[in-house]
Amino acid sequence: MFFEGAEKKLEIMVSKKHQPLTDKPRAFWEELVDRCEATILSSVENDKMKSFLLSESSLFVWDDRILMLTCGQTKLIKSALHFISHVGAEEVECLFFQRKNEYRSHLQPSDFIEDAKTLSKIFDGTALRLGKMHSHHTQLFHTTKAYQAEESDKTCELLMYDMSPEVISFLTREDLSKEEIREFFGLGELFSEFELDDFVFKPYGYSLNGIRGEDYMTIHVTPQETSPYVSFETNLKICKKSQVILHHFIERLRPRSFDVMTFNCPTEFDFGQSYMKTIHVEDDLNIGYNVHFRYYNKKLNEPEKVYRYKELI
Amino acid sequence: MFFEGAEKKLEIMVSKKHQPLTDKPRAFWEELVDRCEATILSSVENDKMKSFLLSESSLFVWDDRILMLTCGQTKLIKSALHFISHVGAEEVECLFFQRKNEYRSHLQPSDFIEDAKTLSKIFDGTALRLGKMHSHHTQLFHTTKAYQAEESDKTCELLMYDMSPEVISFLTREDLSKEEIREFFGLGELFSEFELDDFVFKPYGYSLNGIRGEDYMTIHVTPQETSPYVSFETNLKICKKSQVILHHFIERLRPRSFDVMTFNCPTEFDFGQSYMKTIHVEDDLNIGYNVHFRYYNKKLNEPEKVYRYKELI
Repeated sequence: MFFEGAEKKLEIMVSKKHQPLTDKPRAFWEELVDRCEATILSSVENDKMKSFLLSESSLFVWDDRILMLTCGQTKLIKSALHFISHVGAEEVECLFFQRKNEYRSHLQPSDFIEDAKTLSKIFDGTALRLGKMHSHHTQLFHTTKAYQAEESDKTCELLMYDMSPEVISFLTREDLSKEEIREFFGLGELFSEFELDDFVFKPYGYSLNGIRGEDYMTIHVTPQETSPYVSFETNLKICKKSQVILHHFIERLRPRSFDVMTFNCPTEFDFGQSYMKTIHVEDDLNIGYNVHFRYYNKKLNEPEKVYRYKELI
Repeated sequence: MFFEGAEKKLEIMVSKKHQPLTDKPRAFWEELVDRCEATILSSVENDKMKSFLLSESSLFVWDDRILMLTCGQTKLIKSALHFISHVGAEEVECLFFQRKNEYRSHLQPSDFIEDAKTLSKIFDGTALRLGKMHSHHTQLFHTTKAYQAEESDKTCELLMYDMSPEVISFLTREDLSKEEIREFFGLGELFSEFELDDFVFKPYGYSLNGIRGEDYMTIHVTPQETSPYVSFETNLKICKKSQVILHHFIERLRPRSFDVMTFNCPTEFDFGQSYMKTIHVEDDLNIGYNVHFRYYNKKLNEPEKVYRYKELI
C-alpha cells in the first residue's frame, strides 16, 4: 500500500487590512481545506493562533499568516489560489510554496514547475531548487516583493526516510493508541508545555499538532513499507537548543536518511559518526530568510540487498 | 529546455526457435522502434550483431537477444509488448525491463510500477528496486523462469549527472561536429577497434553506438542545463580492465554524481578521494546475474547555492 508522505507546504503573510486572520470563521478554513481535497479532523487554539489537524496534514493560522502542509495527492495549489483570491493578491506581503521531491511524483496531480508557473502569473517571484534534480531535492517558489522577515522568524523541518525496521514494525501495528505513539516519540519530555491535538489513521499513520503561544510543532507519520516517512516541523528556536530535539528524533527513529531544512537557523549541525552529509545548499532569499537544506545518509557498511516489491506479483 | 535523459532499458533473450534474430528484416526493427515513438537514424552491423542508432537512444540485436535503450518520453513498454507478441511469450528465455528514476517522472507516460504490472500479466517475474525510493534509485523487472546467464555475460552502466560547468558549456555549443565530440570524449584512444556510428542532435545532444564482434558500447549525451546527463554502457569485460574506461569518463566529465550499475562484474571500484559512495546495493538475481548498483557523490566542501529556474519567470 503506497501513500505519498512528502508534504507540499504553503505559507502566506498578509497585510494589516486582513489581520487578524484568526478572526475568520471556521467555515472559511473548512472551505480553504476543501479546495485541496482534505478535511478538518480537529482543532485547538490559544490567544495567539489556531491549529487544524487535517485528513492530510495540518493548517496553522496566526493573526498575520497561515501555514498549510498537505501530503498524499492533495492539490495544495488550489487552496493557495482560493486564499489569494479571497484576500486579494496585492494584500499578500509574502508567499512561500514548497514541494519536496515525491516518492512517486507520477501520481501527483501537478508538478512543482506547473504550480510555480501558476503562482508566477499572479506574483513577481522566483523558483528555486535546493539539491539534485535527478535525485534528492526540495523546490521553492517565493514572492520577491519587498519584505523583511524578522530574525526571530525561524523554521526547522526534519524529514526522516526509511526508519529502522523495528520502528516501522511498531508504527505499522494496527491497534496503536495515541498514548502509545506519544510515548514512543517521547513527546511528554520534549513538549510538556504544548497543547497537543493528534489522530491515529486506519490501518496506521499518525498526525499531531502542538501549540504553545505563537509556537507550533507538527509530526506526520506515514510508516507504509513502500515509503516509510516521518516529518517534524517547528518554529521553535531549535538552533539555540543544542539540537536536542533533532537528535532525539534521529535516535528514536534511526532513519537511513533525513533532511534538515532551516530558515534563519545558521547553526552547524553534527549528527555524529553514523551519518554523512551528502547535500548541503545554503543561500539568502533577499527577503530576510537565510535557508539551509541538508541531506544526511547513514554511512555504508555492507552493501544492502535489493527491495522486492510485494504488491506487484 | 528540459529533456529527460534517463533511459529505460529492455533486454530480451529468445529461444532457438527465433534465432538468429539478426536475420529479421529492417522493417521488423523499424516497426519495433516505431512502437515506442522513436525512429532509426542510422545503423551498422558486423557478422555477430546489428546496431541501430535511434532518435532517442539505441537498439542492439544479436542472434539470441535484443537490447533497447530509450530516453525522453518514449513508451518502451510498447516496444516490449510488440516484440513479445511477435515471438510468443513462451519463446522468451529471459527478459529485463529497467528504469532509472527520472528527473521529471511526472512527465512520463507511465511509471515503473505500471510497466512492471503489465509485464507480470505475461510472465512470472519479480520487480526490484535498487537504491532509495524517495531519492536516487533504479528499478528492474525480470522474469523468474529458469535461466542461467553465462559468467561472461557482463554489463556495465556509468550514468553521470551534473557534469562540470566547463563540460556543459562545451557540450551545449550549437555548432559541434561529431569529430569534436569524439575527440572530447577521447574515443579514439579507448575504442580504436570499434566501428562507430554517431549523431549530433539540434540544438545539441549526442548519441553514439560502437560495435566490435559481440561487444557494444553506447554513449548518450543530454547536456541541457536543467538536466545535464551523460550515460555510457557496454558489455566489455570492464571489471577486468582496471576500470580504465570508467576513470577516463569521470575525469573528462567531472560529474557531481554518478551511478555505476554492473551485472556479473564483482570488482570493487575506487574513485579516489573526490567522491564518496552513498548508495551500494548488491544482490543475486538467481538467473545467473549478480547485480551491483552504486551511487557516488562529489565530496562536499562549501555549501552550494540554490539553483534558480530561468525558464519560469
